[in-house]
Amino acid sequence: MSKKWVYLFKEGNANMKELLGGKGAGLAEMTNIGLPVPGGFTVTTEACTEYYNQDQKLSDEIIGQINDNLAILEKECEKVFGNVDNPLLVSVRSGAKFSMPGMMDTILNLGLNDETVAGIAKSTNNERFAFDSYRRFIQMFGDVVQEISKDKFDDVLDSAKEKNGYKDDTELTADDLKEIVVAYKKIVKEETGKDFPLDPKEQLLMAIEAVFRSWNNNRAISYRNMNDIPHDIGTAVNVQSMVYGNMGDDCGTGVAFTRNPATGQKKLFGEFLINAQGEDVVAGIRTPKDIDELKDIMPDVYKQFHDTAALLENHYKDMQDIEFTIEKSKLFMLQTRTGKRTAAAALRAAVEMVEEGLITKEEAILRLDPLSLDQLLHPTFEAEALKAAELLATGLPASPGAATGKIYFTAEAVCEAVANGEETLLVRKETSPEDIEGMYAANGILTARGGMTSHAAVVARGMGKCCVAGCEMIKVDEAAKKFVVGNQTFTEGDFISLNGSTGNVYKGSIKTVTPELSGHFGQIMKWSDEMRKLKVRTNADTPNDASVAVQFGAEGIGLCRTEHMFFDEHRLPSVRRMILAESSKELREKALAEILPMQKEDFIGIYKAMEGRPVTVRLLDPPLHEFLPKETKDIEALAADMGIAFEDMVTVIHGLEEFNPMLGHRGCRLAITYPEIAEMQTRAIMEAAIEVKEQDGFDVIPEIMIPLIGINEELTYLDKVVRNIAELVKKEKNSDIKYLVGTMMEIPRATLIADQIAETAEFFSFGTNDLTQMTYGFSRDDAGKFITDYKDKGILPNDPFQSIDVEGVGKLVEMGVMLGRKTKPDLKIGVCGEHGGDPKSITFFHNAGLSYVSCSPFRVPIARLAAAQAALNEAKK
Amino acid sequence: MSKKWVYLFKEGNANMKELLGGKGAGLAEMTNIGLPVPGGFTVTTEACTEYYNQDQKLSDEIIGQINDNLAILEKECEKVFGNVDNPLLVSVRSGAKFSMPGMMDTILNLGLNDETVAGIAKSTNNERFAFDSYRRFIQMFGDVVQEISKDKFDDVLDSAKEKNGYKDDTELTADDLKEIVVAYKKIVKEETGKDFPLDPKEQLLMAIEAVFRSWNNNRAISYRNMNDIPHDIGTAVNVQSMVYGNMGDDCGTGVAFTRNPATGQKKLFGEFLINAQGEDVVAGIRTPKDIDELKDIMPDVYKQFHDTAALLENHYKDMQDIEFTIEKSKLFMLQTRTGKRTAAAALRAAVEMVEEGLITKEEAILRLDPLSLDQLLHPTFEAEALKAAELLATGLPASPGAATGKIYFTAEAVCEAVANGEETLLVRKETSPEDIEGMYAANGILTARGGMTSHAAVVARGMGKCCVAGCEMIKVDEAAKKFVVGNQTFTEGDFISLNGSTGNVYKGSIKTVTPELSGHFGQIMKWSDEMRKLKVRTNADTPNDASVAVQFGAEGIGLCRTEHMFFDEHRLPSVRRMILAESSKELREKALAEILPMQKEDFIGIYKAMEGRPVTVRLLDPPLHEFLPKETKDIEALAADMGIAFEDMVTVIHGLEEFNPMLGHRGCRLAITYPEIAEMQTRAIMEAAIEVKEQDGFDVIPEIMIPLIGINEELTYLDKVVRNIAELVKKEKNSDIKYLVGTMMEIPRATLIADQIAETAEFFSFGTNDLTQMTYGFSRDDAGKFITDYKDKGILPNDPFQSIDVEGVGKLVEMGVMLGRKTKPDLKIGVCGEHGGDPKSITFFHNAGLSYVSCSPFRVPIARLAAAQAALNEAKK
Repeated sequence: MSKKWVYLFKEGNANMKELLGGKGAGLAEMTNIGLPVPGGFTVTTEACTEYYNQDQKLSDEIIGQINDNLAILEKECEKVFGNVDNPLLVSVRSGAKFSMPGMMDTILNLGLNDETVAGIAKSTNNERFAFDSYRRFIQMFGDVVQEISKDKFDDVLDSAKEKNGYKDDTELTADDLKEIVVAYKKIVKEETGKDFPLDPKEQLLMAIEAVFRSWNNNRAISYRNMNDIPHDIGTAVNVQSMVYGNMGDDCGTGVAFTRNPATGQKKLFGEFLINAQGEDVVAGIRTPKDIDELKDIMPDVYKQFHDTAALLENHYKDMQDIEFTIEKSKLFMLQTRTGKRTAAAALRAAVEMVEEGLITKEEAILRLDPLSLDQLLHPTFEAEALKAAELLATGLPASPGAATGKIYFTAEAVCEAVANGEETLLVRKETSPEDIEGMYAANGILTARGGMTSHAAVVARGMGKCCVAGCEMIKVDEAAKKFVVGNQTFTEGDFISLNGSTGNVYKGSIKTVTPELSGHFGQIMKWSDEMRKLKVRTNADTPNDASVAVQFGAEGIGLCRTEHMFFDEHRLPSVRRMILAESSKELREKALAEILPMQKEDFIGIYKAMEGRPVTVRLLDPPLHEFLPKETKDIEALAADMGIAFEDMVTVIHGLEEFNPMLGHRGCRLAITYPEIAEMQTRAIMEAAIEVKEQDGFDVIPEIMIPLIGINEELTYLDKVVRNIAELVKKEKNSDIKYLVGTMMEIPRATLIADQIAETAEFFSFGTNDLTQMTYGFSRDDAGKFITDYKDKGILPNDPFQSIDVEGVGKLVEMGVMLGRKTKPDLKIGVCGEHGGDPKSITFFHNAGLSYVSCSPFRVPIARLAAAQAALNEAKK
Repeated sequence: MSKKWVYLFKEGNANMKELLGGKGAGLAEMTNIGLPVPGGFTVTTEACTEYYNQDQKLSDEIIGQINDNLAILEKECEKVFGNVDNPLLVSVRSGAKFSMPGMMDTILNLGLNDETVAGIAKSTNNERFAFDSYRRFIQMFGDVVQEISKDKFDDVLDSAKEKNGYKDDTELTADDLKEIVVAYKKIVKEETGKDFPLDPKEQLLMAIEAVFRSWNNNRAISYRNMNDIPHDIGTAVNVQSMVYGNMGDDCGTGVAFTRNPATGQKKLFGEFLINAQGEDVVAGIRTPKDIDELKDIMPDVYKQFHDTAALLENHYKDMQDIEFTIEKSKLFMLQTRTGKRTAAAALRAAVEMVEEGLITKEEAILRLDPLSLDQLLHPTFEAEALKAAELLATGLPASPGAATGKIYFTAEAVCEAVANGEETLLVRKETSPEDIEGMYAANGILTARGGMTSHAAVVARGMGKCCVAGCEMIKVDEAAKKFVVGNQTFTEGDFISLNGSTGNVYKGSIKTVTPELSGHFGQIMKWSDEMRKLKVRTNADTPNDASVAVQFGAEGIGLCRTEHMFFDEHRLPSVRRMILAESSKELREKALAEILPMQKEDFIGIYKAMEGRPVTVRLLDPPLHEFLPKETKDIEALAADMGIAFEDMVTVIHGLEEFNPMLGHRGCRLAITYPEIAEMQTRAIMEAAIEVKEQDGFDVIPEIMIPLIGINEELTYLDKVVRNIAELVKKEKNSDIKYLVGTMMEIPRATLIADQIAETAEFFSFGTNDLTQMTYGFSRDDAGKFITDYKDKGILPNDPFQSIDVEGVGKLVEMGVMLGRKTKPDLKIGVCGEHGGDPKSITFFHNAGLSYVSCSPFRVPIARLAAAQAALNEAKK
């Protein structure tokens, strides 16, 4: 029983992408629906795998099947491979399951040799065409199959032109080309030690093997690495009889989309060249014409192509990207595939296709890439203005959008400039929590150090603020208020511009354009909301963030961090007095009393912005030393301010330092040591809620969230502390307001004893950032040292901080959900780590049965769409 | 249906400890086997719980049953409660399931009042005795039940003696005592506002309630906290008719053990007083006589007691601690319970009882406390020498044993002094890995800072070296080579002595005694080995540790850390050169080549010491910055030594610093970045094994252990690295030696994907220290800041680093075992964290199906016994 390694086009179909590759499946499908496709066959991806299994050799069985199918092709085309009078010529192209541009160049005109070239000359009555094709074939074959440097061939061509005083290739005569063919064959002999293969069958097998080899060239491997394509699926090879768009003015070639890939408009979009081969369009030697013009030049062919395109879109129910050739007024289809498009085009096409009845709403939702929506939510540079801009450097695209402004090197300077009405950018070596105010005030952030998960990157994404991080080409000198890049120096107040979507840094100011969320966007969101089961909340710490998120459709706040409020420069002195109170509960309570009204105002603003939607407030989380100064001069200032000796202040600060702050005195551990802090925060949360309810009529139900629970008794202890104060406030204010007390699930142990924790907790929220850190035993701050190595060595193909690690961390999430619901079947369970805005992770959270995801405001639309897809995909199963 | 709240002694038995308390069950059992026990009854522990449930009130039902049983008691004793002519008097004593010394004082002579005292005077024909009993009763009742300060009563007594010029209580006449009774009753009236209760039934109920209340007094609560006794089990109350040892010279009272509780020798051991009550023996006013002397004074009573004691031991099949009273030549048994004993006595008694046929080997094994064996393994101070010693300070008993020597303040100074033949102690503020050599050379270690899990404590326990840690009373000035305690200053070379079992620090040298492991010890170990299923290995990094462990019965090394070898002062320069090679693989390999022969020598020594037993070697684990100097002067020296600019050296060192080293670049992550290190170590391990096999004939099978695996690809990558070198070495040496490659299970994620990991790993070893840290999200180094608060607030009753957290960390261990064995049913799985030497944890590991535990050498005997007990307990189920 032999396996089928080769399929004629008519034997395949669109669903066989895995076996035939994308191109092969497309050719097969078009053949079967009766479109004019030049005959041919596909050697399968399995043959590629077999080739590697057999130590890079084609088995006799595969060779046999190739020859059998070649014979059928000869019969179909009524031409014969290698026949002098009526030779069959073929193209050989690679085609994997996933599109991998540039993996291997195409070989055209395979089958030409010293004899068949004459047959072509005779049958086309064009000797020059025949020899031009022949010399092109030798060059392509030499380059692609035999790995001979292209330059060597070009040198021969150039010197022939020089000798004859030609400017263009087109001036070469048939005789010139014959000489060139001879010279080319000499190169091959010199380089390979063998004659150029004249046997067409030998040429074909060599070409097929070359395609298989190209699967593992460096370009292909790194492309697969970058695009998460498996390395073991192999490529197919398509062998197709040649048609020619370059045999005269009744010939041509072109590429077209069934809809505009930039806007989504339903109208053929594309271009073509008369008397040219496909590669000429790509090479850009001549300027192609708009596809509309074909209507005037070849009305019949245009109509046929127009109808065929419509038929293909209708058949595939999606925008198609089509390649065609016209040979002597006859249309041939060479490729069709789903057309790549911008996010805006994708939305419009999806909505309009539903309106046209072409696809269902569900299909429309499923075909959109949630992440691409991000393009539509952020400012971009005006295209014209950008053209004139000078690129200074490129860093990491840490948080998308475009921003322009005057540079400042400290948060204070930014805030001051913004107060004076300036547009600003914050430039730092790296940011720290003390910079929050400045980050918030600036239009964008540029850092010289730090990766995609550095403080600057994480905070900026949270704020939806443009950020270029880790831009190591710039040397920042904060003290001197300048940065140097190349031989240019930029000082405070100079304008630069940042593109956080690409990581580009430009000199000067570039005009930005604020995006408008079109009606198609709204329609897609509306459909998504109808389909999804997961609620979508946002992580927001300010009224402004909250408002933005509500506009993006957030249904509540899943994480309101309270520590950012502590970093406000007007509050920091009180916060520091609270911390430095140390063993004096009295002093600490006094300092907390100063903070209370400020925290309360924060919550009032947020509740109002959320207009009655639920708000989950997390109690203070970071270790206290984060609020204390690190630099000697700042410590001196603080000591003077507090009337403490400098040495004593240093001692206190050192005493608070930790070996592993991530695993130290923070989260609920702080609240257990200093219940006064939790009490103050609870009071602020409750008083604000009661006030907003009474004054604005919003029915606020605050959800008080206790972080870092790992031991059941931590929660039972703090639950009492919180409830005591909450009830006290209710009594004081004579209010019957409702509130919930719940916990983060971010310590591995919490997920293991979630059944116990659910006895007290009224909700869970998975903090997957910390859960990932502890489950992996990685600190994000330190992992940079080895993570690059891990990626290079294929040890960590995906970043578990970006997309949830389903098999490890995910198992703990599932356990937490299962155990929590065992105790409380209706337990509300959310996620508020960065994974809450990641589509892949959202699929997992949906399947795990979570109630909601919470993400940064700019991720909310993405999450809504991804949640809908998750629900649809589940229903499909 | 009413519940039974009260049991007559004859209604109970020895198995009813939970309901009747230990004392009540003992009295019941003795009553039922026909021993002379004064009649009485027990109010159950359930009644105590009910008392608390009913808001601290005795229900009518309970009161009713007390009265019913009182009536039966009256009938039995032929006396009547409150009857003037023939009054029944009773004692009231608490008695919980677990012995809780000092929880509540006993009340004697309850039932006395102004009328019954006359009856007693008449029936005993001793008015003085009657009134002395009465005034004692009022004082006891006032103190214990009515919470009146004892001093008030003592003042009256003292002034009466003073007034009459008496020196002793015994000089008080009946009339004096009558006056005192009047004065005592006045005190009661003044303090409580009520008359002293004269109704015996009221007295009884008040006394019973007082016992119940005493269950929740501060002393009792903290005793339970310290001893892991649940708070909700309540206490019983024993009401028993009085007998008197103080009615004349034919009376007496005493306490005796059926065997010697210090040595275990089979011979009555105890003491008695003639004409005294039980409390007189305790009070120590008169010197009691040896129990042997009773033979001469009351031969019949002695014989009866001797036989009764033998009968009780026989009955309970264990050494008994017995209280008795002789009333007018009649013996009464008042208590029997299992006698507390030293570890040595426990061993001897257990072995001899098996030889006597009293108990089985299994019973002998089960009744020993594994942890108590520790007493027998370490040096102790000579008792006489200790008496003369001056106690300077007390720290934490971090690692047991006694040590004496001259103090030195740096590891170098210790090493030098030891090289000169001195006995030394290392005194430091706190130790760091750089001190390892000095810790090893010194007789003991004293630190001023750090807890039971500090570096000094952990390493010292690992070495079996005496250590007192966190001794904050001493102020260490390392630079000045001195420490100050109180107003005394000790400088380099002064003698002090340490008791690591108590935390005591003494002035001067005290002679120590090295323990001998007696035949009983060996016998118990032999029986343990027959019964246990878990293998017991040791954690050992040196040939000396390995030898000690083998003497203690270790069956292999479960964890040989290689980093300690890197700290050797002769190697550190090479290690540092390796680290500072940074991006130069060549320089690093050169430095590694210098280390290779030294590592190889280490392994040769260890293999020889283990004589063919398996040795698991863990590849380098700690982050590299641990090997670099921290002090400026050390950095300067290193920079000079390496010919690097100081600033550059500082930059490199800073570059290696981490925010959270625990979660940083260490373990297998190091080996992935620098495979050369793993390759050098593998070569050393293999070459040493082959050499020892060939030269000494030991069939060494090295087990190479890769630490900190969390991702399957980490292991597959390093497995290849290790195997490549191992195979290369085998080929070079022409050897067919066997070896295994396995991994630590210490990252939570590893336990979750253990099925994948087991595909490559040939063994697992749970590193429960790190696993606990990451599962809890605690860093041991930092947890000190909040852990005290956690204990105070009852949030963390047990230290999860001491005894494994079964419900959290344990769940991950079980998952790792289950998944690992799913892939490889016979997978060898051990544990090498500190939990490997903890009996409670060993029970868990046995039940979880582990193959072995590995612990520090001095824990090996403990683990052998604990493993046997775990196996026996499992078999019982």
